[in-house]
Amino acid sequence: MNTADLRLPVDVPSTALFTDQYELTMLQAALRAGTAGRRSVFEVFTRRLPDGRRYGVVAGTGRVLDAVENFRFDAGVLGFLRERGVVDEATLQWLADYRFSGDVWGYPEGEVYFPGSPIMRVEGSFAECVLLETVILSILNHDSAIAAAASRMSSAAGDRPLIEMGARRTHELGAVAAARAAYVGGFSSTSDLAAGFRYNIPTVGTAAHAFTLLHDSERDAFRAQVDSLGRGTTLLVDTYDVAEAVRTAVEITGPELGAVRIDSGDLLLVAHRVRQQLDELGARDTKIVVTSDLDEYAIASLAAAPVDAYGVGTQLVTGSGHPTCSMVYKLVARAESADPNAPLTPVAKKSSGGKTSIGGRKWAARRLDAYGVAETEVVGTGPVPDELAGRQLLVQLVKGGEVVGREPLDAVRDRHAAARANLPLSATQLSRGEPVLPTEYVHERSGN
Amino acid sequence: MNTADLRLPVDVPSTALFTDQYELTMLQAALRAGTAGRRSVFEVFTRRLPDGRRYGVVAGTGRVLDAVENFRFDAGVLGFLRERGVVDEATLQWLADYRFSGDVWGYPEGEVYFPGSPIMRVEGSFAECVLLETVILSILNHDSAIAAAASRMSSAAGDRPLIEMGARRTHELGAVAAARAAYVGGFSSTSDLAAGFRYNIPTVGTAAHAFTLLHDSERDAFRAQVDSLGRGTTLLVDTYDVAEAVRTAVEITGPELGAVRIDSGDLLLVAHRVRQQLDELGARDTKIVVTSDLDEYAIASLAAAPVDAYGVGTQLVTGSGHPTCSMVYKLVARAESADPNAPLTPVAKKSSGGKTSIGGRKWAARRLDAYGVAETEVVGTGPVPDELAGRQLLVQLVKGGEVVGREPLDAVRDRHAAARANLPLSATQLSRGEPVLPTEYVHERSGN
Repeated sequence: MNTADLRLPVDVPSTALFTDQYELTMLQAALRAGTAGRRSVFEVFTRRLPDGRRYGVVAGTGRVLDAVENFRFDAGVLGFLRERGVVDEATLQWLADYRFSGDVWGYPEGEVYFPGSPIMRVEGSFAECVLLETVILSILNHDSAIAAAASRMSSAAGDRPLIEMGARRTHELGAVAAARAAYVGGFSSTSDLAAGFRYNIPTVGTAAHAFTLLHDSERDAFRAQVDSLGRGTTLLVDTYDVAEAVRTAVEITGPELGAVRIDSGDLLLVAHRVRQQLDELGARDTKIVVTSDLDEYAIASLAAAPVDAYGVGTQLVTGSGHPTCSMVYKLVARAESADPNAPLTPVAKKSSGGKTSIGGRKWAARRLDAYGVAETEVVGTGPVPDELAGRQLLVQLVKGGEVVGREPLDAVRDRHAAARANLPLSATQLSRGEPVLPTEYVHERSGN
Repeated sequence: MNTADLRLPVDVPSTALFTDQYELTMLQAALRAGTAGRRSVFEVFTRRLPDGRRYGVVAGTGRVLDAVENFRFDAGVLGFLRERGVVDEATLQWLADYRFSGDVWGYPEGEVYFPGSPIMRVEGSFAECVLLETVILSILNHDSAIAAAASRMSSAAGDRPLIEMGARRTHELGAVAAARAAYVGGFSSTSDLAAGFRYNIPTVGTAAHAFTLLHDSERDAFRAQVDSLGRGTTLLVDTYDVAEAVRTAVEITGPELGAVRIDSGDLLLVAHRVRQQLDELGARDTKIVVTSDLDEYAIASLAAAPVDAYGVGTQLVTGSGHPTCSMVYKLVARAESADPNAPLTPVAKKSSGGKTSIGGRKWAARRLDAYGVAETEVVGTGPVPDELAGRQLLVQLVKGGEVVGREPLDAVRDRHAAARANLPLSATQLSRGEPVLPTEYVHERSGN
């Protein structure tokens, strides 16, 4: 399928082009040098959490599985690479047959992570693994950043539902992934229809200020909305005067009015006033939704206010100050020859300028304290100590090229809630601090 | 076309679902109330620039035109909306025939903007215009944020080329749009093959640390790369010891080595040392590329260093601290009836809580000083003063539903360079400050 000629804004025929050019030039050079077939282990990890954050949230794993499955070089892509002279004919021929045939292990989606956690591990020939670097990092870095912000917001919101409404503040397809990641992090619904279509996330929405302004009066607008959407709808009450709008709203609907939405002003003050007014008007079951430039701190500050739901846009889709993670995809071990039985040698960058990492294929386990609460993230090479064998974090996601780790998004969302609940209480403090679990490295003495 | 069943990560069949649900529920209510056909004017503008920024950069316009052209509700989309009960049957029938038939005017892409600039104006029936809000804002808010960061970086880099390499730090399709916006803002090339494919932007890339680690020695790796990619390639020299790597590199290639890349450490110091070493080895024409966590400040700090090109990733695709703009899409005027000849009435939100705006269809012009340098952004309603008639900023992009404003990306890139060059010199200071042009409002006394 090549959709380029339809001139859709979305017209990348497969995931294979979500790739930095150097992945292909490395492939070409390795094919020619005879090193492309060396068995290799790449790992995704981060050296640090965003400044002040207590934990990270793995999100995007399901999208990575889709991307790996659809990573193929069709005629249109190969023609582009040939025309541009990106790689030589031998490499193009190799790419034409490309199908990832290796293994992927990873933290299950929704799990929390810490500096050094081996979030994903990709094993196969160097050639087949190196090509996946860019798209895997794009997905995990974006989605995990959004999920981390969503998790903090949902923790601040407690039992009150959160609505994701940031589509207009980010790339139109980034928005779809953001809605998915927000759901993983604890949001209940999204305004984004594409996210409902693609991921079956509940969608919500009623009206904007434009609808009120379109009509000759606020009363006309409210009546038009209620006539069409019913008394259970949410009326936006801050186009002109909030108190007058609330009075008009309840006049039209009676006490069955579903909700009012407040999108500007001092939300704490206005919510209290509106609650009192609604109660006085007998609309005791009418809910209050607030939606103006909220982040986790604003949500927390409204904890004692009579607010029933929060709509969050900008700060959600921009990761609340941290729009990306710093996950990297590093070669940590490779065979010394293309012989499939050649042993693996740990490798790592070693220059003095920083960005060093730990070589060797890693396992990870979470040690619990006497009360069953997570205490330490243990990352090691070599054999797993017996006492941690049952607490290992990595699960198999792809086996011999076959995706085996796909799961429903609700299971992922539940996993995140459970993983967060198992962290020390300080995890949900919004204040800046150290990662809530220390990472302990268990090194094997020799190579693995 | 419905690509959903291919399970591609990219499978939204048209741009119509990049839409907040409330656009459709407003449509339903307005159709029922008989107000959907009222002629309406929506405008995109921002109330402020990101804190400390001197100017904004309009980017994404070309992508908006693609999105408007492909905004259609096919059977798959209508089936989804029906199944979910998003809107009623009458609305679904209306949507099935949807084609935008109105007009769009806007600042040409690449132009600079300021608070209050009417960046885009969409005119038609309320129904056909309101639906476009979300996707237009998604595109402009994302792309303009990246272009603004790119513009600051290219201004800091002067004549040295900038390579966009942030794909791994953002959503995989956000990355493609980011590469496009970076090119508009002055970048020369991208690592992202999809951006090369989709927008014909030059792509570059050679090798990562993994390539060196794959081989038995750095010498083997360099030889493999040079054998395949030629002596003009760029060798990455900071996997182990930089000085040794540079020596090995020049031993293998001789003085024809294209470039070395430094991706860690104190770039200022290392660049000076490497330049000296290269010169001593006779490789006087070998260039130095630096690529480690750069932003506009780091680029500026390397102005006196012997650096030939910069690669920028994270800070580019995250807008260097401002990953989104605060552009809104507001109804500013509408007819009082569905009669196509009914006069337009200016409208605006007026509640005390902020977010107020100025009603009425606006024009904009840039006033120059005696030296021909931009002095004031003038925004008004009603007739354009004669002295500004030739300096108007809005151009027609869509006429009666037909796209008339498409243009080559290189023309957009050139326009941005020219627009920036016409601003007062303080525009290119990186320090925080006020917008470099004040916005002056020229109000018409009565409605238009």
